[in-house]
Amino acid sequence: MIKIGLLGLGTVGSGIYDILTDKKFMIEKCTNKKVEITKILVRNLNKDRNIVVNKSILTDNPYDIIEDPEIDIIVEVMGGIEEPYKYIKQALENGKHVVTANKAVLSEHLYELNSIAKKSNRAILFEASVAGGIPIIKALNEMIVLNNITEIKGILNGTTNFILSKMTEEKTDFSETLKLAQDLGYAEADPTDDIEGYDAARKMAILSSIAFDRVVNINDVECRGITEISAFDIDFIKNFGFTVKLLGNASVLESNLSAQVEPVLIDKNSIMANVGNANNIVLLNGDIVGELQFYGQGAGKNPTTNNLV
Amino acid sequence: MIKIGLLGLGTVGSGIYDILTDKKFMIEKCTNKKVEITKILVRNLNKDRNIVVNKSILTDNPYDIIEDPEIDIIVEVMGGIEEPYKYIKQALENGKHVVTANKAVLSEHLYELNSIAKKSNRAILFEASVAGGIPIIKALNEMIVLNNITEIKGILNGTTNFILSKMTEEKTDFSETLKLAQDLGYAEADPTDDIEGYDAARKMAILSSIAFDRVVNINDVECRGITEISAFDIDFIKNFGFTVKLLGNASVLESNLSAQVEPVLIDKNSIMANVGNANNIVLLNGDIVGELQFYGQGAGKNPTTNNLV
Repeated sequence: MIKIGLLGLGTVGSGIYDILTDKKFMIEKCTNKKVEITKILVRNLNKDRNIVVNKSILTDNPYDIIEDPEIDIIVEVMGGIEEPYKYIKQALENGKHVVTANKAVLSEHLYELNSIAKKSNRAILFEASVAGGIPIIKALNEMIVLNNITEIKGILNGTTNFILSKMTEEKTDFSETLKLAQDLGYAEADPTDDIEGYDAARKMAILSSIAFDRVVNINDVECRGITEISAFDIDFIKNFGFTVKLLGNASVLESNLSAQVEPVLIDKNSIMANVGNANNIVLLNGDIVGELQFYGQGAGKNPTTNNLV
Repeated sequence: MIKIGLLGLGTVGSGIYDILTDKKFMIEKCTNKKVEITKILVRNLNKDRNIVVNKSILTDNPYDIIEDPEIDIIVEVMGGIEEPYKYIKQALENGKHVVTANKAVLSEHLYELNSIAKKSNRAILFEASVAGGIPIIKALNEMIVLNNITEIKGILNGTTNFILSKMTEEKTDFSETLKLAQDLGYAEADPTDDIEGYDAARKMAILSSIAFDRVVNINDVECRGITEISAFDIDFIKNFGFTVKLLGNASVLESNLSAQVEPVLIDKNSIMANVGNANNIVLLNGDIVGELQFYGQGAGKNPTTNNLV
């Protein structure tokens, strides 16, 4: 029996609880083990919730979970930075495996957390932290065994891709398209993280850290957002056969990392130009396997939950 | 120490030998084990070869390898159908793990070989059998734990995609473009398997067998090739915004498998329409994770060798 402690019971946390319950049979069949969530950290023990959970497994004390010798795996989906960072670190030191999708923590501390995990002979897994439902972290981890990664490129932020795709289709301006994205739930009330490219930059930091085996954080990624792009620009470049996308890009030249997130003109008869809506795509170039591209939903409860589980 | 017996030392076999030698250090670092090829099956012991191999590990008797109690893993890259099928089966029964990229064997016998492997508690792995360097088998195996697969779709044959892409770009006819593909080494002297869609159908059989957990072989896949497509057809449909691609397609409706390989008109502003040259793409649709697409080189010594290793 594998016992899981869940830190957080918001949208994603309850998604994980539901899937582990619904898919019990297939998970047991494939892992040959029973898997059960035995404790869940919540902020408010008495809050009404949309899911049916045995109240006796809820706790508002994280150390009830992190210090529980029975628990094998900690799944962190609580949000924030300082608290989850502290808990993840402590959990790894206590000999637990950790699963998280916390980009903010990973893009600052991945290299350190990986080292602690290695020392404790435990895993820190974070497939859902980059590109939602796309299994890109595992693919990259397997590629680096045989390949030197020469290039990472991709559309890593769904919100800005939705905005740019709509601006292209509807010939609308940035500010009104942002408003539409907010109304439809694709953009948050404070959209800064997405539209300035910071979210994509965090994901590039995570991918680069793995691909190039070094400490990379968000400050190593040059960042330019999409706020200054107009309907006129998009229409103008269309006539020359181009589309604009917010692309992440990273490579290593003479052992120096070069990493950017910025709007780029790309040939409209290309795969990346045709990634629409809030979808993501990641290109990895390896010196043996060649160029691979992975496409899918970059966010959303179900794709993210799928990759966490 | 993991000991490997290699059946076959052609292009792919020698590629495997080279990579396992060149990448010894990274493989040991990642697996924490030494990995070594201890015996190799060849047809002719005295043939001159392009690679440096200790002649004492060569044998022309397959049972020297399959019956060797020291060997943990058999890698089959010898080609053919009846012989490799017999050896793979025997190796699994003898408690060895098997790695192969033999589409012909897998598309006929996958379900049976999987059952034998399960009984012996051994693995049969065949990542390189479908779509060359794209890690699609692993992705699919992981998807099915949580997802019902609702659809498989893709460009699975590099030769026909090269021919159709060239016909579209150069407005040339089928027969002259086939000749070009043969001259460039993209098509074989007898191109039937590729241009009639049989190669893609075998790959669809392998993917469908995993995705829908049933016996599927090439006869279950309706198959129509590209030989009757003219330059005129391609130019005509281009005016309506379409491109033609040889697509595989499979789904299950009311527990009946529907699987085809056939030329399909697709919107030129789509991802698949922009997969050029000899590249492959595979789309998997899962009820939880949504639509994923995986793009890369569908053939070639290095991508194939990468996924075998």
